Amino acid sequence: MTKHKPRILVTMGDPAGVGPELCVRLLGHAATAELCTPIVFGDAGVLARAADRLSLPLEAPAVVAADWVEKCAAMERPAIVDFAAVDARALLPGVVAAECGAASYRYVTSAIDACLAGQADAICTGPINKEALHAAGHKYPGHTEIFAERMQPEKWCMMLTSAEITCSLVTAHVGYHEVPGLLSVERIIDVIELTYAALRRMRGREPRLTICGLNPHAGEHGLFGNREEERFIEPAVAAARARGIAIEGPLPPDTAFLPQRRAVTDAYVCMYHDQGLIPLKALAFDSAINTTLGLPVVRTSVDHGTAFDIAWQGTANPNSLYEAVKLAAQLAMPIDG
Amino acid sequence: MTKHKPRILVTMGDPAGVGPELCVRLLGHAATAELCTPIVFGDAGVLARAADRLSLPLEAPAVVAADWVEKCAAMERPAIVDFAAVDARALLPGVVAAECGAASYRYVTSAIDACLAGQADAICTGPINKEALHAAGHKYPGHTEIFAERMQPEKWCMMLTSAEITCSLVTAHVGYHEVPGLLSVERIIDVIELTYAALRRMRGREPRLTICGLNPHAGEHGLFGNREEERFIEPAVAAARARGIAIEGPLPPDTAFLPQRRAVTDAYVCMYHDQGLIPLKALAFDSAINTTLGLPVVRTSVDHGTAFDIAWQGTANPNSLYEAVKLAAQLAMPIDG
Repeated sequence: MTKHKPRILVTMGDPAGVGPELCVRLLGHAATAELCTPIVFGDAGVLARAADRLSLPLEAPAVVAADWVEKCAAMERPAIVDFAAVDARALLPGVVAAECGAASYRYVTSAIDACLAGQADAICTGPINKEALHAAGHKYPGHTEIFAERMQPEKWCMMLTSAEITCSLVTAHVGYHEVPGLLSVERIIDVIELTYAALRRMRGREPRLTICGLNPHAGEHGLFGNREEERFIEPAVAAARARGIAIEGPLPPDTAFLPQRRAVTDAYVCMYHDQGLIPLKALAFDSAINTTLGLPVVRTSVDHGTAFDIAWQGTANPNSLYEAVKLAAQLAMPIDG
Repeated sequence: MTKHKPRILVTMGDPAGVGPELCVRLLGHAATAELCTPIVFGDAGVLARAADRLSLPLEAPAVVAADWVEKCAAMERPAIVDFAAVDARALLPGVVAAECGAASYRYVTSAIDACLAGQADAICTGPINKEALHAAGHKYPGHTEIFAERMQPEKWCMMLTSAEITCSLVTAHVGYHEVPGLLSVERIIDVIELTYAALRRMRGREPRLTICGLNPHAGEHGLFGNREEERFIEPAVAAARARGIAIEGPLPPDTAFLPQRRAVTDAYVCMYHDQGLIPLKALAFDSAINTTLGLPVVRTSVDHGTAFDIAWQGTANPNSLYEAVKLAAQLAMPIDG
């Protein structure tokens, strides 16, 4: 597969959200087609209706899902794989529906299976609606857990990336109070190593990492907190350095994100969700991309939701999807070839 | 006192740090003198030596500390109150010394007592060195605790302000794990009210506040955390609204600091130190001012330290001090007159 452009499976997301119009734009986006071959796993009827409604061109060919395995090897231009999962004419844009939740689940799991079978190089997921997913009986908090369950990775972490700032998370979707109990030297080393490997690939050189403390002022030598910096973070940093990884910290979390530190940091290793996502969203607005590191298959995602309030109006910004597909292509490329 | 320009006591901070050169610049700063009367509580000999070394003019008159009570009522132009606490000629810039710690403690406590006695309108503190303070036998973690002990305020909070963003803290210098146990409806109401009052004075109009949740996604209806949003933050918001305060939230902490939200927020109420200080420092760099709300006397502070590495070299930026003095003057002015 590596002698061709990477083949990126792009799941359409919830049919009633902004996913379809973004996929229509992506399929006609020349810069993306230069870099990789995006294949939208979705509904051809929904995409056609969205294109029609918004007067957008849609020239990519559609293949029925049943033919995917037979035809995939020859697919080298942007295309649609049609699951015909919903009735496009009856679809209500911006409305939660079990049928749409079931469809978005099917696109994702089919894409995962295709990648695991070696039929494509990476996945970029469009936005799904958690309520619709649950209404269809799929009780996952989000994409990440669907991937984790289906792929059973040994270690993985969430990383958010943007032109301005990139952050990996040691803990993510857990309550504030649970974080200290989830820290361990091993987990922090895992996240450092996953982040290092991803950034080395993205930058094409040795990356420089910065790791944050947990407590205000990074604990100030035990003045604040339970010495989580000394017990967990410092040993992990020492181990990472012994393996040749350039990493600074643990730094006081507030000064870690000052401009002069950002200028010498390719990625931050953060202890909890908001430690990374507050500065990321404050600085990068809605241009960030979400990626799950450590899966057997590269997976990236837009960093926005289904945006039901503006769905099917043609105003949704496709840049996050373009960037997410581009990152998937970068991460899927062989590192030295 | 309110018929004159406010009289602001500016403590010189550690003599070996950047405080003296910043105070020399402040005493010659015309825009500050337009707004208020800055009186530096420090050492005249140290200020003279700093001015001489950096070839800066220093024309403000010096009054010996023993004459302060007698002369203060007539002091309506920038001046120095001389405590002659250190030997200016023997002073080593950039070096921790007990003598300097003792001096900086004396400036601060004298300024507090002067304000409590009604001899001045507000205090702006220059940077002190914690090590020097401790070496002198004063075991405080910082200014705030000196003020709290001497003034015994019923309720108080730390607020950081800048042109870009302003944040008040429900909890501040405590370990990460202690935060949930320190939240209460009463404490959050106190911080909302202190912040509201300060911002109303600073803006001259009804301010708009935004309050953050504690957990990722503000708990997402109990999915993450122990419902701290429902148990503590929402009732406090309801109580504040019932008193006519415009406040939105609890918002997911990461989206709370997006540009569109910042544009409609005069101040944020944050649950913990880094929730407020990460975005503040990422966005406002080193231009923020620290103020302690709820004291019987207005107190502001520069948001930088003693910067021993650049002390007495003339390169320290005085803007944070100018802004801190300006804010002290604003907060000390009578609200409708």
